[in-house]
Amino acid sequence: MKRRYLLTPGPSQVPSFVREALGREMMHHRTEEFREILKVSGEGLKEIFCTKNPVLTLASSGTGAMEAAVTNLVNKGEKIIVLRGGKFSERWAEIAKAWGIETINMDVVWGTSPDPVELDKLLTANKGVKAVYTTLCETSTATVFDIKSLAQVTKKHNVMIAVDAISGLGQDLLLTDEWGVDVVVSGSQKGLMLPPGLAFISLSEKAQAAAMTANQPTFYFSLKKALKNYEKNDTAFTPAVSLIVGLKDAVNAIKEDGVAARFVRFAKMAYAVREAGKAIGLTVYSKRPSDSVTAFHVPEGMKAKEIVKKMRKEYGLSIAAGQGEELEEKIIRIAHMGWVNEQDLIMCFSLLEKVLKDMGYKIKIGASVARFQEVIYG
Amino acid sequence: MKRRYLLTPGPSQVPSFVREALGREMMHHRTEEFREILKVSGEGLKEIFCTKNPVLTLASSGTGAMEAAVTNLVNKGEKIIVLRGGKFSERWAEIAKAWGIETINMDVVWGTSPDPVELDKLLTANKGVKAVYTTLCETSTATVFDIKSLAQVTKKHNVMIAVDAISGLGQDLLLTDEWGVDVVVSGSQKGLMLPPGLAFISLSEKAQAAAMTANQPTFYFSLKKALKNYEKNDTAFTPAVSLIVGLKDAVNAIKEDGVAARFVRFAKMAYAVREAGKAIGLTVYSKRPSDSVTAFHVPEGMKAKEIVKKMRKEYGLSIAAGQGEELEEKIIRIAHMGWVNEQDLIMCFSLLEKVLKDMGYKIKIGASVARFQEVIYG
Repeated sequence: MKRRYLLTPGPSQVPSFVREALGREMMHHRTEEFREILKVSGEGLKEIFCTKNPVLTLASSGTGAMEAAVTNLVNKGEKIIVLRGGKFSERWAEIAKAWGIETINMDVVWGTSPDPVELDKLLTANKGVKAVYTTLCETSTATVFDIKSLAQVTKKHNVMIAVDAISGLGQDLLLTDEWGVDVVVSGSQKGLMLPPGLAFISLSEKAQAAAMTANQPTFYFSLKKALKNYEKNDTAFTPAVSLIVGLKDAVNAIKEDGVAARFVRFAKMAYAVREAGKAIGLTVYSKRPSDSVTAFHVPEGMKAKEIVKKMRKEYGLSIAAGQGEELEEKIIRIAHMGWVNEQDLIMCFSLLEKVLKDMGYKIKIGASVARFQEVIYG
Repeated sequence: MKRRYLLTPGPSQVPSFVREALGREMMHHRTEEFREILKVSGEGLKEIFCTKNPVLTLASSGTGAMEAAVTNLVNKGEKIIVLRGGKFSERWAEIAKAWGIETINMDVVWGTSPDPVELDKLLTANKGVKAVYTTLCETSTATVFDIKSLAQVTKKHNVMIAVDAISGLGQDLLLTDEWGVDVVVSGSQKGLMLPPGLAFISLSEKAQAAAMTANQPTFYFSLKKALKNYEKNDTAFTPAVSLIVGLKDAVNAIKEDGVAARFVRFAKMAYAVREAGKAIGLTVYSKRPSDSVTAFHVPEGMKAKEIVKKMRKEYGLSIAAGQGEELEEKIIRIAHMGWVNEQDLIMCFSLLEKVLKDMGYKIKIGASVARFQEVIYG
């Protein structure tokens, strides 16, 4: 008998009130009742996305919405820039390659954010770029990109910017309309406190216009179709009914907390996590740490996967190791997104201390927890 | 306070034991525990699909898997035949058109099945056809297509055949391997007793080989990627965890009933439905009625949508009207798939009798229910 605690950077915890909603009796989707649920959840998503524009709901993983954000905005032979600094920002380039889109990759050192000045130079040197694709929280390095500054640059060059906010949405500040972000993509299983299975995409007027005239072959992920149905509180294809029923309750709960209040709360929580780690000698991997997930270098001589395995096998608590050959054994990642709260993190550090000590790391038991408490409650 | 009864041809009823599974605590998907769930549900799907080949699970509606069945098998400029006789078989042609695939449509009168002899002629006259796309249960007309005979013809011409079994799977007999069907597509929300949000696709060796060399731009729906991950009991992208947890319990329950026994049971149930309707003077729309859903002509002078609306508003029971301008007011459709049982249908006819009587239809109350009971229990 072991209790389980989920602190991985997605899927994230699903609260019991959402799990209850998921298990309700099935309803038909072409009904007034369901259209009302779609409408309410859609309005809630707008608040969370900080936009007045439509936020479309698709039945797919986040990657499906990323592909839609490429194929509905950019035609074959057109040119884009991808700002890369980790596994997930690289995915934009993989998608573009699959679709025959000319791609300029602007790579940054992992753990850092793309430099707006470099982007400005690149856009000046390369005329005719249709859009810039990048990432809010690069989950693989636990780094938040400076979307505000990057969007200023794309605005200056009159180029669209699309942001993968799959793991960052709801924690890492993203003022979509105010910053002039054209496309924001997200998924259900992180900040939105649902199981995976829904993807979301917001579109500025410019992005909507592009979607209406795109000529890549799309069907299931046609945003033109999705937009037409969105206006009628409907979906182009059978929606994932139970997840959307849960979504309504999840977004309502987030609105009750307050979207702005939550940004502040997660920023403080993330700061407390970094401070707690430092209190036991751990160093933060990222130069620009995210408020959704924190990565620590593992202590000298230790392997990340072993720490993660011991945490899960011995105490039922799941955190993540690194991603990709270079990083997988070098960092551990602790998520603070969605339903995760301060007490979850205190518990996490109490177990991390124990596991590291068992593995031979010199540590004063209680130090990280005390520092965490001090930051949050002191 | 009104009880609700769902007898629409999708989404279909979700049993309480599956709804309980959907509401369980979230788990991480890159774990042994989840891989085991994927494996067990995948093995169960093979039994239900009547195939020894892989059945891939995708996070999307059924239409996503239909698109995958086109884009991963047929390249741009190649030629296919679509056998059409209703709204859903037409979708194959819409997808092919979006992807620039040359399409020969063989249309049949709605409510009938494509003629294998005609297909034989068409394949003889048109060399170089890559695949034939068609439908098991054409939901819009409640008609089952003669897949066995059609597959004999495609086999003779050494052409692949892909079948949309989204609504038919589990009720309408489909012996995938024995009949030589290369691709079968289905969804979660019909015979499999789950909410919508998962799609499935089985691939013969020939279809797998085609998927490995396809050159259309695909990413999220790349079956090459899906097949590679399938071998490792994994998924290419974040799977819809809660739905897959429910899937395992649903397929296990179906296996316990027995896949073959269920085909027989639904055939009998569908026969009883047709007989019950006839006992109150209703006529069956389809010339080749499906075992998953039955369509009746509405009585002279009545409108299908009004019958459906009264059933739902006054008694909480949902059936469906027709689809498409021509049929929407002409037929009512009653589903018998997945979790629906004989008692649901007795209840349905008892209410249908009442509603038709209230609308002025001359009827002997009890006649359809009595005939249904006689067929099933007599």
